[in-house]
Amino acid sequence: MQLTGQSIIGTRRTTGSGVAFFASNARTGERLNPPFHPASDRDLDEAVALAAAASVEYRALARGHRAEFLREIAAQLEALGGALIERVMLETALPEARVRGELDRTANQLRFFAGIIEEGSWVDARIDTGDPKRKPAPKPDLRSMLRPLGAVAVFCASNFPLAFSVAGGDTASALAAGNLVVVNAHFSHPGTAEMCGTAIAAAARRTQMPDGVFSLLFSRSHHIGQALLAHPLIKAAAFTGSRKGGLALAEIARSRPEPIPFYAEMSSVNPVFVLPHALVQRGEPIAEGLHASVTLGVGQFCTNPGVVLLEEGRDGDWLVAALGAKIGATQPAPMLNSGILENYCRLVEDRGRNARVRRVAQAAGDGGAAAALFETDAETFLESPELADEVFGPASLIVRYRTLDQALEIAAAMEGNLTATIHMASGDEEAAARLVAALETRVGRILFGGYPTGVEVCQAMVHGGPWPATADGRSTSVGGRAIDRFARPVCFQDAPASLLPEELRAGNPAGIWRIVNGERTRD
Amino acid sequence: MQLTGQSIIGTRRTTGSGVAFFASNARTGERLNPPFHPASDRDLDEAVALAAAASVEYRALARGHRAEFLREIAAQLEALGGALIERVMLETALPEARVRGELDRTANQLRFFAGIIEEGSWVDARIDTGDPKRKPAPKPDLRSMLRPLGAVAVFCASNFPLAFSVAGGDTASALAAGNLVVVNAHFSHPGTAEMCGTAIAAAARRTQMPDGVFSLLFSRSHHIGQALLAHPLIKAAAFTGSRKGGLALAEIARSRPEPIPFYAEMSSVNPVFVLPHALVQRGEPIAEGLHASVTLGVGQFCTNPGVVLLEEGRDGDWLVAALGAKIGATQPAPMLNSGILENYCRLVEDRGRNARVRRVAQAAGDGGAAAALFETDAETFLESPELADEVFGPASLIVRYRTLDQALEIAAAMEGNLTATIHMASGDEEAAARLVAALETRVGRILFGGYPTGVEVCQAMVHGGPWPATADGRSTSVGGRAIDRFARPVCFQDAPASLLPEELRAGNPAGIWRIVNGERTRD
Repeated sequence: MQLTGQSIIGTRRTTGSGVAFFASNARTGERLNPPFHPASDRDLDEAVALAAAASVEYRALARGHRAEFLREIAAQLEALGGALIERVMLETALPEARVRGELDRTANQLRFFAGIIEEGSWVDARIDTGDPKRKPAPKPDLRSMLRPLGAVAVFCASNFPLAFSVAGGDTASALAAGNLVVVNAHFSHPGTAEMCGTAIAAAARRTQMPDGVFSLLFSRSHHIGQALLAHPLIKAAAFTGSRKGGLALAEIARSRPEPIPFYAEMSSVNPVFVLPHALVQRGEPIAEGLHASVTLGVGQFCTNPGVVLLEEGRDGDWLVAALGAKIGATQPAPMLNSGILENYCRLVEDRGRNARVRRVAQAAGDGGAAAALFETDAETFLESPELADEVFGPASLIVRYRTLDQALEIAAAMEGNLTATIHMASGDEEAAARLVAALETRVGRILFGGYPTGVEVCQAMVHGGPWPATADGRSTSVGGRAIDRFARPVCFQDAPASLLPEELRAGNPAGIWRIVNGERTRD
Repeated sequence: MQLTGQSIIGTRRTTGSGVAFFASNARTGERLNPPFHPASDRDLDEAVALAAAASVEYRALARGHRAEFLREIAAQLEALGGALIERVMLETALPEARVRGELDRTANQLRFFAGIIEEGSWVDARIDTGDPKRKPAPKPDLRSMLRPLGAVAVFCASNFPLAFSVAGGDTASALAAGNLVVVNAHFSHPGTAEMCGTAIAAAARRTQMPDGVFSLLFSRSHHIGQALLAHPLIKAAAFTGSRKGGLALAEIARSRPEPIPFYAEMSSVNPVFVLPHALVQRGEPIAEGLHASVTLGVGQFCTNPGVVLLEEGRDGDWLVAALGAKIGATQPAPMLNSGILENYCRLVEDRGRNARVRRVAQAAGDGGAAAALFETDAETFLESPELADEVFGPASLIVRYRTLDQALEIAAAMEGNLTATIHMASGDEEAAARLVAALETRVGRILFGGYPTGVEVCQAMVHGGPWPATADGRSTSVGGRAIDRFARPVCFQDAPASLLPEELRAGNPAGIWRIVNGERTRD
């Protein structure tokens, strides 16, 4: 595929306006061709207007047709194959196996949501049939289901150039729910973005989608993204990135004349609690597992275990030393871009300067981010909120607690997180039960005996969490429930059958699960 | 029941601090005993701290036990019977039949949510079983469901002293989902509030609920309500009231260090579209139905039809005249309180002074709010956003359109509303289809041939709508989905059975509908 550096506005391309920018080779810093042309305000207006105009047609499509569109996007992405993988590797420095895995996941996500809309029950159809003879007042016929919101903005993530970018989970779930999508490309991997955008545009053409179902805007500054989110015809938005970026966008989303749902996945330190019996019985595998999880993908996962809680004492000392040795021996590796690397180095340096924090180990060598391990005590951690801030990269902080009550106090005092992990063994049951009770209102996913990196795409997954892990703690950006973010219930009272969506009609022609007069049924 | 004028903090009463206030007889303005004592900041802190402390115990209760609590509240309310109805009538000027109906509805709502939690499937349990042999990585066991948020604040509505106040739909759905509730009583009907609060406290005692599951705070100023919403241990809030009040509270909810879900039902003009063939065929019953709906309960419903769209021409002229005659002949009636009446009179006077609006009719006589009917043309309506503002009371505005396109333009340009109504007859099908497409992204409920007042409590009801009808257009405050507002999904990965909620355990001991490996099943 020949890259053009142009934004995609429905079925056409545009060179926009302003100074072009370039992607860089994430390993060497070398400039990559072609130049990318920032979208203009007019391009943005056109993309959103096209999407809004396509809304009635797109949401009225048979759901099998929408599913076909999603499957065709998956096929088009896979057809790009090696060329796409190569460009992602150049722009992100991610290794080939990871990029291949992410491409598989991205295609599978699209097919996953295609399956969900084909099955169809996600719309939560509810029917209460009327009774004209009821006293004192007749009972109306009421039928409701989830309906799409309209045009949705998607902001690409730096750390998931495929799975949470142009054709990633947010786009897939928004399109599946019947929304139109305008994507704000990430400046750090624009070539990847164009290739994925071209795949979606081709799929839209092949499956005869209305013009405007998808657009992709390039920009180097924040201006286009902010203007997109503020646009009155945009009805919801999704973002994966830093807390700073997420909070700035959240402020725009909620200050609009019409505030809109904004799903930002922002930051998380994913506390890992190693309980005393697990520490005694499984210190060695836990040290290994933690090392692998902290350094996986150069620590560039939102589920990276950034805080590990460990009881004081000899067994804990051994684990700290063992994990420190592994961290110290880790080969430095390039990060996604120079800004992310600089930020990581600065935060690690700051942490090392804190007199109440011990630097257990730091990897040596050149070539990118050096993994680092720190240690502090529970009192210091409780008194220093900045120690619970995310350090995006291969670093972790061990917090040593004296008593279980102290660990529980930390669990209850922590900000919202995407995940928490409990390592337990026989004898830890009571402590684990108390921890679960404290953690379940603070995180989206509680793991037992595993490591938080690795997010399975399936119906049951929850990849969300209370503020500030995400901007909306009732939502998840991965898993079956992700589609619910882009829909809202609409009720039809005494509607003629011809004006009802198929899912609400008598005889259940869609064959979906519904709640009819209080009973769940497929009849 | 002897009223004490005291706030209820869990199992105890408090006289708070500051200057006591009194309820008034809504018909005569006469002061009613006893004095009510505003809650102090300390009372508020205690109520919220008690609720937060009770959270783990309450949410761990067997769901049958929570259902028993809700049913007992219903029984306690009904046991108050005549004394409660009398006090409501004194404080609100609502007629006996309406108050009796509202008490029935309130008790039925509590039993409705008791039934929903007993049935149990609302928790949306999803299970993906693990596969340790999967390549390249083992598949974890993932189980997720909706879990309660914690302590929730409920703000009472002036216009539903029972059904949307102390023991109303917000309290019922929040308690049902496993949350603790702290209610901010409405100053306009404090005696009603105390009676309902006492009923809940008695039910909590009889069903052995933890201390703090429910508290009720009195105050005359906004201070306690605002401090309640800002309290760090409050995790969500619900409100029904004016747009001004709702927006002020929404700002507090979103500006907290940890923003929380805030469900405000604020204002709505509930447009009614009378299509040309329906106008010709059913002008007379529509005039009758509109008159009844506009004046029902002295127009004090959030679903009051405040805007009626009617084609220009003779048939429309006839309907305007017929409706005007009925409005003009309506007996004025007292409103909920003097502030609401003053506000209504001021808005009607303002509208009457607008040179581009014609006053079709205004009722004459003393004794309260005089019903009023206004008329304008589509151009004026489109150019004057203030004409789409709610006038809380028995008034409506007819908007005359020349073409269907103009009616569609109005539908698309309107702010979010709770409802829209379409009156259609044979020949209006195509117009109706185009209207539905425009309206379904602007309202929560679309009615065909009826009148928006009257909100059925059932699974399918949606009583919500896009901003500014409500603060969260994905939610409903009536119907089965209201319970979802106070819960969020939590996922358990590879959890030992003993640490899982019953709903997620192997063998489905709860007997609920779940999604297991992608299939909806009860096995």
